[in-house]
Amino acid sequence: MDGSCEFDLIRTYFAHLGSARADVTLGVGDDCALLQVPVGQALAVSIDTLVAGVHFLPDCDPEALGHKALAVSLSDLAAMAAEPAWATLALTLPPDLLRSQPHWVAAFCRGLDALARQHGLAVVGGDTTSGPLTISIQVHGLVPVGQAVRRRGARPGDLVCVSGTLGDAAFALRGLLAGEGVAEGLVRRLDRPEPRVALGLALRGLASAMIDCSDGLAADLGHILEASGVGAELDLAALPLSPEVAGAGDWSLPLASGDDYELCFTLPPAHRPALAGLARAGGTLVTVIGRITQASGLRCRLPNGDDLRLARKGYDHFAA
Amino acid sequence: MDGSCEFDLIRTYFAHLGSARADVTLGVGDDCALLQVPVGQALAVSIDTLVAGVHFLPDCDPEALGHKALAVSLSDLAAMAAEPAWATLALTLPPDLLRSQPHWVAAFCRGLDALARQHGLAVVGGDTTSGPLTISIQVHGLVPVGQAVRRRGARPGDLVCVSGTLGDAAFALRGLLAGEGVAEGLVRRLDRPEPRVALGLALRGLASAMIDCSDGLAADLGHILEASGVGAELDLAALPLSPEVAGAGDWSLPLASGDDYELCFTLPPAHRPALAGLARAGGTLVTVIGRITQASGLRCRLPNGDDLRLARKGYDHFAA
Repeated sequence: MDGSCEFDLIRTYFAHLGSARADVTLGVGDDCALLQVPVGQALAVSIDTLVAGVHFLPDCDPEALGHKALAVSLSDLAAMAAEPAWATLALTLPPDLLRSQPHWVAAFCRGLDALARQHGLAVVGGDTTSGPLTISIQVHGLVPVGQAVRRRGARPGDLVCVSGTLGDAAFALRGLLAGEGVAEGLVRRLDRPEPRVALGLALRGLASAMIDCSDGLAADLGHILEASGVGAELDLAALPLSPEVAGAGDWSLPLASGDDYELCFTLPPAHRPALAGLARAGGTLVTVIGRITQASGLRCRLPNGDDLRLARKGYDHFAA
Repeated sequence: MDGSCEFDLIRTYFAHLGSARADVTLGVGDDCALLQVPVGQALAVSIDTLVAGVHFLPDCDPEALGHKALAVSLSDLAAMAAEPAWATLALTLPPDLLRSQPHWVAAFCRGLDALARQHGLAVVGGDTTSGPLTISIQVHGLVPVGQAVRRRGARPGDLVCVSGTLGDAAFALRGLLAGEGVAEGLVRRLDRPEPRVALGLALRGLASAMIDCSDGLAADLGHILEASGVGAELDLAALPLSPEVAGAGDWSLPLASGDDYELCFTLPPAHRPALAGLARAGGTLVTVIGRITQASGLRCRLPNGDDLRLARKGYDHFAA
């Protein structure tokens, strides 16, 4: 590679990723990007890292990976009820990947670009370095001051709700690792999760607390409970499950598996009539799965009426 | 490690890094941080990644590494004349490092925290994952709208200036890799670069273009020339060099070696009287090393009057 390769890469692929936005005074190509936050809006930021062999299979489709790397971060904006605005991309690439798969970066950027445009997001900066394949994306969103939905805020009596279906990504990963055939729709749930941005925005002024399910429902709901100083009772029979996950008969799939990127939120009972409208606005199922309790802890009622004993709280990146 | 290790790490070390700031509505511990950008200020953002074995020696002092990882990013804010406000930290850690050096994260955070406090910067979010040691830091700075100093803007006749001395970091690295004794002051230049934030702020309204020297003066000044559509002539006899670098007799040290994190800027000749005040405000040497020319390209005049032929433009992370 010649000495200008790094800059060529950045210029070629990163300079025009995502939507053009009038609030980007200066994008890729200087020491910093310059951005304009409108008066009355708070800036919401979140950074997430995906590492080859830890968060994705090293030989996975680069276009899907570009989608997923951004989706994971957008999901955090959704969980805050923030509107996506800008992203930066720190991409660490093994030189032998660039040599063996010269189109890898272009495919990765194609996947990222398509999702960015879908959400009106501009990629405004980045850094490309040599090293083990690692992707960090920071997203920046906008939310009117005081309207962000946090983890704290759940009150006894609030409904516990989730979007979409739970456990699909873990079911697909388990099948793929075992060399089994997995339905395309479930593989898509693993490879190309759809961040629930529209639902998050629709929940402004309605949800009392919210989080995205990245580490498994039990762990993620657990964060809401801890931050809010409350507990919850879940009715496992109410969990929204795809037929495959329901058929697997393994509660750890919906409860303790990561990578779903659905929203878990709490809703004061007075807002229950809004649920149908929320599902329409969000373009996804919205299901009531339980209730917030004054008593701390998470109780999960099995369909037979017994309590499920939770063996572990969720997926942990250091547990392996 | 038990299942809550990742969250414990984040909570213990990341929750209170850097200064407390009133403009942080919500810091570490939710899906996003919530930040307030004052009216009339632009948001300047930059992300940088350091990879073990590429940007630093795997066994380097973690406290120095924490300093350097933030310094590298702060240097980009300095080069934009932006005031540091907030940072996010994406840290990828090998599990065996955590096991063999249980105090590594605390030491890393200590180095980062000290530099953050020095610049009034709050760490507002992060992500910790398992994998090869990699650090991405995004910094967020504030600059009054219209006062950022970009790379474009250099005009023929402008003075080319640099802060500090050039080539020290590369000289130290070369010596350390060769197992030679290196003066402590030079090792410090490699391990704990001081981002020239105060100088960058003092250059608002004065510098016509600016960049930080992360890839080597020739490459970095080259970005200013390209963005501004001009050329430059440098007087190599004027380069500010430490005695050790001057004694090495190798122009590639100051011209083509990265990691100096000094500022290179252009100054309209009418502002030459401001130079002494800039050096005082910046707490560092400021040296005029050449002039911007209408003719494109970079000419480097050797002390004997001949032109230096530039073999390569700078350090490239993919060249190795």
